[in-house]
Amino acid sequence: MALKLDYTCLLAGGPQGETGVSADDLAAAEAAHGARLGRLRAQRAEGSVGFYDLPDERGPARAAMEYAESRRGHFENVVVLGIGGSALGTLALHAALSPPLVDHERGTTNRPRLFVVDNVDPVLVSGVLRTANPARSLFVVISKSGSTAETMSQFLLFLEALKVQLKDKWTEHVVVITDGSKGHLRPFADAHDLVSFTVPDNVGGRFSALSAVGLLPGACLGWDLEALLDGASAGRDACLRDDFRDNPAALYATTHHLLDTRVGCPIQVLFPYSHQLRLLADWQVQLVAESLGKRTADGVGVGPTPHKAVGATDQHSQVQLFAEGPVDKVFTFLRVLEHTDDVIIPEPPPGLEALDYLGGKSFAQLIDAECRATNIALVDAGRPCCAILFPRVSAATVGEYLMWMEVATAYGGQLYGVDAFDQPGVEAGKVATYGLMGRSGFEAEAARVSARHLSDAATLVG
Amino acid sequence: MALKLDYTCLLAGGPQGETGVSADDLAAAEAAHGARLGRLRAQRAEGSVGFYDLPDERGPARAAMEYAESRRGHFENVVVLGIGGSALGTLALHAALSPPLVDHERGTTNRPRLFVVDNVDPVLVSGVLRTANPARSLFVVISKSGSTAETMSQFLLFLEALKVQLKDKWTEHVVVITDGSKGHLRPFADAHDLVSFTVPDNVGGRFSALSAVGLLPGACLGWDLEALLDGASAGRDACLRDDFRDNPAALYATTHHLLDTRVGCPIQVLFPYSHQLRLLADWQVQLVAESLGKRTADGVGVGPTPHKAVGATDQHSQVQLFAEGPVDKVFTFLRVLEHTDDVIIPEPPPGLEALDYLGGKSFAQLIDAECRATNIALVDAGRPCCAILFPRVSAATVGEYLMWMEVATAYGGQLYGVDAFDQPGVEAGKVATYGLMGRSGFEAEAARVSARHLSDAATLVG
Repeated sequence: MALKLDYTCLLAGGPQGETGVSADDLAAAEAAHGARLGRLRAQRAEGSVGFYDLPDERGPARAAMEYAESRRGHFENVVVLGIGGSALGTLALHAALSPPLVDHERGTTNRPRLFVVDNVDPVLVSGVLRTANPARSLFVVISKSGSTAETMSQFLLFLEALKVQLKDKWTEHVVVITDGSKGHLRPFADAHDLVSFTVPDNVGGRFSALSAVGLLPGACLGWDLEALLDGASAGRDACLRDDFRDNPAALYATTHHLLDTRVGCPIQVLFPYSHQLRLLADWQVQLVAESLGKRTADGVGVGPTPHKAVGATDQHSQVQLFAEGPVDKVFTFLRVLEHTDDVIIPEPPPGLEALDYLGGKSFAQLIDAECRATNIALVDAGRPCCAILFPRVSAATVGEYLMWMEVATAYGGQLYGVDAFDQPGVEAGKVATYGLMGRSGFEAEAARVSARHLSDAATLVG
Repeated sequence: MALKLDYTCLLAGGPQGETGVSADDLAAAEAAHGARLGRLRAQRAEGSVGFYDLPDERGPARAAMEYAESRRGHFENVVVLGIGGSALGTLALHAALSPPLVDHERGTTNRPRLFVVDNVDPVLVSGVLRTANPARSLFVVISKSGSTAETMSQFLLFLEALKVQLKDKWTEHVVVITDGSKGHLRPFADAHDLVSFTVPDNVGGRFSALSAVGLLPGACLGWDLEALLDGASAGRDACLRDDFRDNPAALYATTHHLLDTRVGCPIQVLFPYSHQLRLLADWQVQLVAESLGKRTADGVGVGPTPHKAVGATDQHSQVQLFAEGPVDKVFTFLRVLEHTDDVIIPEPPPGLEALDYLGGKSFAQLIDAECRATNIALVDAGRPCCAILFPRVSAATVGEYLMWMEVATAYGGQLYGVDAFDQPGVEAGKVATYGLMGRSGFEAEAARVSARHLSDAATLVG
């Protein structure tokens, strides 16, 4: 195991004081651990929840690497058409595992750029169309159902652009990642003999980063997929341990659930002190929000609010609120113990002697000092904090982290009494969109939303 | 006035139901409006708070444009060394006003790229050093005090790189933006005859986007600064209106404060449905968090938690929580009425007939339908929502928006009973950093933090 979870400052009576999980509450959670773990294992064994097994299935990674190898030298750009779970894992892994600032250069066939088109704003879509020449780009279309309006509207656009430029050769520029049998994209891929990959039926979008959804882009961009999956495999095993006090997922989920429901800290701040790990926060926001933000069987709305901060940047943005505002937050510092590419800060020139203390130190020392200092300051202010220690940022540690948080979220579903794997709350908006866009079969909804007035002249001001 | 605030669904009894501001509470706030506005005006008149007047002072914008014109053709990269308020405004304006994806190309002297180095991670710093050739870059160093550890450590690094490449000519590649007389950077700039700009003493970092802090990068990147300031000026005037029911800042601040303190919705979600406006959310997070997240005179921690979501993207990430989770959030949709660069979605090819409803529509129609649909869905779920309507994304409307939110935040300081213009809660972390970095004069703090143990072997797991 490479990662460590340090939850000392989450327990009442710890260095941060009395705001924390009580020993009794933690003991009660420990007593229930066996049963909770048993239900997770049962879901895995019966095949209803599949993300646990993604690290062991090396076929997709090998197929992705073979595909990338066979097409190496052909593409300057990898363009992912996907949104939500089809985008956030790839974005987080790209930030962590691709060369920094790789997208700030014209792509080359040796070092392609990545575009993740995760919105339908015409400014973004037309910008990608202009910037990434379709003839030199690979389009990775990701939608389990093949009906995601955002992704499919983009696919229609880029497909037409490809056909104009490449005629019948367009098929060499498209990879489809979709359900194994259901939905609209599978038959389309088959009909055109497109390269395609499968998202297992029992793996939801937000748990799919380690499936072909993340692996295929990663193979094209040169990530170490074997190490990624090895790390995830080790992380999964740790998170299924019977010993509650030795199980990072159970401890993370339990302490955070108790801090929300018993201590009054529903806002969970993920605070990576790392440029490379910063987008893990966006990935985790979806994972937690969409899995645990639910109505219980009693109709009560529950779930924490995951919130992003980036260190050291947000010391100059959010730490004022974190230190002095309401005690309604719990903080998870991601601390990197060994930074790569370290740079020494030069000695200051005459006139800037006040900066003498910086000269000769390194940027790694500085960001680590800021991480520790902010952690101490929040603890001194009585705020519950934990830290996850990364020996370094690597495919293995990031893979391990993804699995820790995925298992913790599945575990959290039981604590909150909700299904961590559905998302009924997004249906109403989708149906209203279909109504507004005039989709056949949604005429009643079109009439309903057209009649729904949200505005009143008396409360419109400018 | 171009922007409109629609707060219909924030009032109890509105389309969203009973979760909202009561008529009595709003009437009480209206009765107090004259006195509150009077205090804002007094702070402005006595000169203690200066951001109101930035739109009228056209000297810095003209000087910035003259400088940019004089150096046009020399720089492929504009590198901002700044953090917090020295970075977030520029980032937000760049996303809104520069060509989309401009940074995804090698910069040219006609179309420079922007790098904002807002962290001290060595991977980021060394990446910028490799990617932006100092000899073809302009470095804009922004720190009021000249002692910001992050910014100044970067400056030492890039300064050395410039001297190695350019010898005495390094001075042509640096612009300093700092206090008019105080701090370490002003004498350094004078000694080396550097081009420099001033942040007025009475303008804090998070209120400085419309000072040289944002204007100088903007001049180099080609934004319409006059329109930006014209919009801000109009926005400022609207926000100082005596008529409460016609004052967008007073209404925004009051409704949000009451939703936090009387209704139980402390989480303020800013939900721009626009790729270009997405970074306004990061700017606003700092503005609100650092201004209002405070201890009151009674020692009570107060202040809302500003939180970012981006439409349509986060429909696939956070809307599940927003619609079904706890009723602890208020939503501000930023809706753009006319999108530029619109693109028509092609008709689907055979096999994808299920997408017929998208063919022939435009991406602007789609993102606007999603905005309306999500707004309706959240209102139907009983969640308080408001909307700010942008006729289009332009320098004028974005300038107006910045001023709306700045005045609303100043107004909010009075509602919460805190000083919106200080940030005492960040000092403890700064001092601890100085201790850990061995800064002279901070030996006692070094001893204190070294003795502060946040970790216990029993609560470390992995």
